[in-house]
Amino acid sequence: MTENMKDSVISTRVRLARNLKGIPFPSKIGAGQANVVAGKVYEALGKGYKLYNIARLNESEAGALVEKHLISKELVASCPFGSVIVGDDETLSVMLNEEDHVREQVILSGLKLEEAYRLVDGLDDRIGENAQFAFSERLGYLTACPTNLGTGMRASVMMFLPALTITDTLMQSVNALGMLNIALRGVYGEGSDAIGFIYQISNRRTLGLTENDILGLVRTAVNHLSEAEERAREFLIATREISVKDEIMRAYGIAANAYRLSNQELIRYFAFIKLGAYYKLIPVKRVFALDELMTSLQPYNLISAADRPLNTPEERDVYRAECVREALKEIVG
Amino acid sequence: MTENMKDSVISTRVRLARNLKGIPFPSKIGAGQANVVAGKVYEALGKGYKLYNIARLNESEAGALVEKHLISKELVASCPFGSVIVGDDETLSVMLNEEDHVREQVILSGLKLEEAYRLVDGLDDRIGENAQFAFSERLGYLTACPTNLGTGMRASVMMFLPALTITDTLMQSVNALGMLNIALRGVYGEGSDAIGFIYQISNRRTLGLTENDILGLVRTAVNHLSEAEERAREFLIATREISVKDEIMRAYGIAANAYRLSNQELIRYFAFIKLGAYYKLIPVKRVFALDELMTSLQPYNLISAADRPLNTPEERDVYRAECVREALKEIVG
Repeated sequence: MTENMKDSVISTRVRLARNLKGIPFPSKIGAGQANVVAGKVYEALGKGYKLYNIARLNESEAGALVEKHLISKELVASCPFGSVIVGDDETLSVMLNEEDHVREQVILSGLKLEEAYRLVDGLDDRIGENAQFAFSERLGYLTACPTNLGTGMRASVMMFLPALTITDTLMQSVNALGMLNIALRGVYGEGSDAIGFIYQISNRRTLGLTENDILGLVRTAVNHLSEAEERAREFLIATREISVKDEIMRAYGIAANAYRLSNQELIRYFAFIKLGAYYKLIPVKRVFALDELMTSLQPYNLISAADRPLNTPEERDVYRAECVREALKEIVG
Repeated sequence: MTENMKDSVISTRVRLARNLKGIPFPSKIGAGQANVVAGKVYEALGKGYKLYNIARLNESEAGALVEKHLISKELVASCPFGSVIVGDDETLSVMLNEEDHVREQVILSGLKLEEAYRLVDGLDDRIGENAQFAFSERLGYLTACPTNLGTGMRASVMMFLPALTITDTLMQSVNALGMLNIALRGVYGEGSDAIGFIYQISNRRTLGLTENDILGLVRTAVNHLSEAEERAREFLIATREISVKDEIMRAYGIAANAYRLSNQELIRYFAFIKLGAYYKLIPVKRVFALDELMTSLQPYNLISAADRPLNTPEERDVYRAECVREALKEIVG
């Protein structure tokens, strides 16, 4: 990954949708068949993986998995027989009996499309040896929703695009990608409400192209947006230097000192601290540490990891601020 | 001064109003007689003092004197023949041809009523040797406004009362002083708009009591308010610990990092930093340095002291933030 990509790419995710031959799609099955699906997949993986039955998790445990992007909100909300298998380091995971029987996923820090695909493809091979996938020579892998048909693959890259957002030129840059059929989604709100300036870029099409085609499309889009973001960052500091520096340093000053910090504030201030690291205004030692910290401080992860019960939003905000004050001393220096 | 007074007293000011016998009050005279007044007083003081003719000062120079409480706004706005004599260290000053011919003043840091009176009395003696004051055996010193008649003395103490303000119990404490006839005035706005939590406490009566009576009254009032403030600070931290710490540390975080700071923000944040010093949340080396810094960063003082022209509010806010960032590194450590 080139230098400018490093400044705007957070993580890469590749997932493959699969269904087992001879078993109806998850919306049509009961606990019995759902268990067959989960059993076959878990058997294929075994050691180094844990299976979680979503119905048996409490709200915080399930919420923490959603915040880490290991499962979807839908799995928790509307899939009574849903479960997930998570690899020890949480890089590999398989969501079971959500919209499709099997959703194999790999998440890696930074821009690592090929590596992520290689890993998920290996996972797919192992599962495929133990379970026959529903596959058509003409259509490819069969999925519950036609938008996933064919490769069943979604390659997505989480990008940090503050300057394109602030200068209101993000949609312009995305529209220039028109032919690539790329989807862009704000991770914490859309448009001017995209408080953390974080977006997910992914392929819309899964049918009629190869896995490598998809990786290429997404890579092209990420490259284009990285370059546009880099130019926008130069423009921003050249045209609004004081106002940008002021906003960055206030965000840092508050985050490093506050005694209570809402999740919204956390997302907002960390975005500006990262921008401050880019402009070398704030001596951040490891930018990825900020991303990791932010995930670990999302509401449910916070509850799971806390050294004391956090029953109210106020208690969570106080604990979050404590963690941020301590962590920033380490990360900034 | 006791410890608790130290935490709530900023400075002491004593001023004496005098008029010269045989010359009409300033509102009734022209340049000629006003010069006679100024000449007689300046002659009495001489070395170590500078005379400024207000009409010859530019807006910033005059504004800077107002911000340092060396002259009144009225002297600048509506006294065409007004002038001021300022001692080298700005402790002693004499305002000339404002409402009265002569307003002798001493300002000292901290609570120093007796010392301030002794100094202003010495000044009064020197001036009185060279100029005969208008004096009545029955009424005392004659003044343009009857509220100054008698001693012509106003003893005032600048107090920092954040907890009484935040807990909305300041008026209650002041009302308990009813019989003392004490005036309380917010220095930067009144009531809940008193952004810096700074108030001036002074005697209302000047007639029918001695100078020592006045010093005693003001001292009693200051003592009472200091104790009430100390109790309110204990109550505040006991009942709203997180919210108070949060507000203090955010104020510090912003002040120490911002790239642009309005005067309103400065006043507000410095008030919270001082409160943070009291609670030992912020290791402030010298609290008086914060008070001095705040005065030096008021708009006109800022313009006068700056190393470059500050023509717009934006330029002033940027320069103010620069000064604050640098100064806080020295003052907090």
